[in-house]
Amino acid sequence: MRALSPAENGAEPGTRFLAEIREQPAALRRLLEQDAEIGRIAEMVRASDARLVRIVGHGSSDNAASFGVYAFGLLPRWTAMRDSITLTVHYGTPLDMSGSTVIGLSQSGQTPDVVDYIRGARKTGAFTIAVTNDVASELALAADVTIPLAAEPELAVAATKTYTNTLATLALLAGHVAGRGAEIGEGLREVADLAEAALPGLELATVPLALPFAYTGRMFVIGLGVEFATAREIALKLLETCRVAAEPLTATDLAHGPVAALDPLFPVWAIASDDGTLAPVQEAAARTREMGATLVASGTAAESIEGAAYRVPVPTPSISLLSPLLSVIPGQLFAWSLARTRGLDADAPHGLAKVTLVR
Amino acid sequence: MRALSPAENGAEPGTRFLAEIREQPAALRRLLEQDAEIGRIAEMVRASDARLVRIVGHGSSDNAASFGVYAFGLLPRWTAMRDSITLTVHYGTPLDMSGSTVIGLSQSGQTPDVVDYIRGARKTGAFTIAVTNDVASELALAADVTIPLAAEPELAVAATKTYTNTLATLALLAGHVAGRGAEIGEGLREVADLAEAALPGLELATVPLALPFAYTGRMFVIGLGVEFATAREIALKLLETCRVAAEPLTATDLAHGPVAALDPLFPVWAIASDDGTLAPVQEAAARTREMGATLVASGTAAESIEGAAYRVPVPTPSISLLSPLLSVIPGQLFAWSLARTRGLDADAPHGLAKVTLVR
Repeated sequence: MRALSPAENGAEPGTRFLAEIREQPAALRRLLEQDAEIGRIAEMVRASDARLVRIVGHGSSDNAASFGVYAFGLLPRWTAMRDSITLTVHYGTPLDMSGSTVIGLSQSGQTPDVVDYIRGARKTGAFTIAVTNDVASELALAADVTIPLAAEPELAVAATKTYTNTLATLALLAGHVAGRGAEIGEGLREVADLAEAALPGLELATVPLALPFAYTGRMFVIGLGVEFATAREIALKLLETCRVAAEPLTATDLAHGPVAALDPLFPVWAIASDDGTLAPVQEAAARTREMGATLVASGTAAESIEGAAYRVPVPTPSISLLSPLLSVIPGQLFAWSLARTRGLDADAPHGLAKVTLVR
Repeated sequence: MRALSPAENGAEPGTRFLAEIREQPAALRRLLEQDAEIGRIAEMVRASDARLVRIVGHGSSDNAASFGVYAFGLLPRWTAMRDSITLTVHYGTPLDMSGSTVIGLSQSGQTPDVVDYIRGARKTGAFTIAVTNDVASELALAADVTIPLAAEPELAVAATKTYTNTLATLALLAGHVAGRGAEIGEGLREVADLAEAALPGLELATVPLALPFAYTGRMFVIGLGVEFATAREIALKLLETCRVAAEPLTATDLAHGPVAALDPLFPVWAIASDDGTLAPVQEAAARTREMGATLVASGTAAESIEGAAYRVPVPTPSISLLSPLLSVIPGQLFAWSLARTRGLDADAPHGLAKVTLVR
């Protein structure tokens, strides 16, 4: 029997979801208490010289994997990829994974095909790492080593603090592999402080955004580079809590076809960071405006997006790789607020359970 | 000055798009005339022992790259990935790409960031292959070797025959690398015959499908494994020619959140193949039906999907890896037919040009 959601017990719908959004700075600080342990695991990765990083997960975990590609690419300059689970698990293809570090991401640690993938990878020579909020889970048992997400129980169905802690884990692990663990740890402490200070203002800024989008049925969320993970995660929050057909796209891919679908009732949310991706994101935003679509700009460089009807900037951290930990927050808060406006309970969306056991 | 589209010259809108869908068997046979040359390039790949395959492209080319992951995974059992362009091109990260085979996909050969990526990869030690419909293009000049798509000019903005020829090129190259080139070549010849024989019936089956979906604003397209490329490509056709907010999802990812957005006005198109992915696709289809969404089933195993309101099966090729060359056709024809029903010109969608020069 499942526990009742707060709304079923008479509380405001979305209470847990909002509480967990607000808990993110505290959850991040708890993760940082494990810095030394993550450093030891990074030492094992370096010792095994397993330089091809394969990351697997579903939903928010897969979105975090998109960030992992950049964490390992920018810090140790190793190649990381979101690997195909189907190739080995469903097709049973025997792949030689020696020379690979494999990271399985699952909040519950119960995702069946992720567990199967990790078991297979370990047997064929990979060094396997479980990243999970449940250190007694099947995933933790299957892997060589486990990094606990330390987010404490996450009760809303839509992930928030486990997502940001997964980003932080990947950044910290990649940082230690690159010999820059202390610097990344310091950067994450700063992000926790920035997020805590910014949260009240971001709540005030995003709540009024729900009304103009109350009847929005479709939306693109665009980002590039490190912020593509953010685009994917914001789109997923809107899909699962607000029933918006929100599709994440890279700023570049928008121009390769999807832009043709835009019109004034098909808005675009653009996440802009002040790095090498700003020009393509600005260009995609301009194309969006040409199609008459309403534009929302968020991210550290939200103010650099011309023609945005709404802007929700976030503070700029010292290490720009870490900006996705901040830039996802306006999207989480918008999803919470829009769900409320629509009379939906973001804590317990229709048709979903917290733990997904589908293969 | 751009040439007028057939509709602007008084012809039926979508004339080119339909003609190019129909040309696919002939285009595939033209590609197969280059079998010996592709075999020679595969020899160079084997000689360089560059066993990590990095594939890059945008739009339909990126969708084909999803197929490449399985072509190289299932045939030579090498790891292939859709690599990040942003990491090296926009962030300027110096990655050591020795030991990598890099495949740049671009119909026009002009996609700027793909050209930049290939130049950088070649400089840092990768063996680089251009796959393009224009052998005199910048991409062809940038790479070590070029495989011409041999699709003849593609004039409709939405790709069809260059997409299927890109799939065939990746299958043939991976086949030759695995020492199975002759078998894959034979399999592709069979696919050309099957497609040619099936096309008239598929046209008859998909045209009446447009009417029930005339007002559909959003849709998921699901597939898994080799058919994830098909799901991505059908969704892109619907986005660019019909202005449907069509999002591709793996059958597994549907359950990890997006399923919550479904309702009777949010249909799902499922591509089912009779391989190790059938059970998860069937499970996703059942979840779809539970949410009250209308279900369309296509693919070689369309008849195995219970509760589908509409079914468009395609013939089963001898080599199941090659089924995506057939299973994309009902989606292409549906897009053509739906665009016509909506009064849109599939040859020249609003806001798009054939060659995308965005970075």
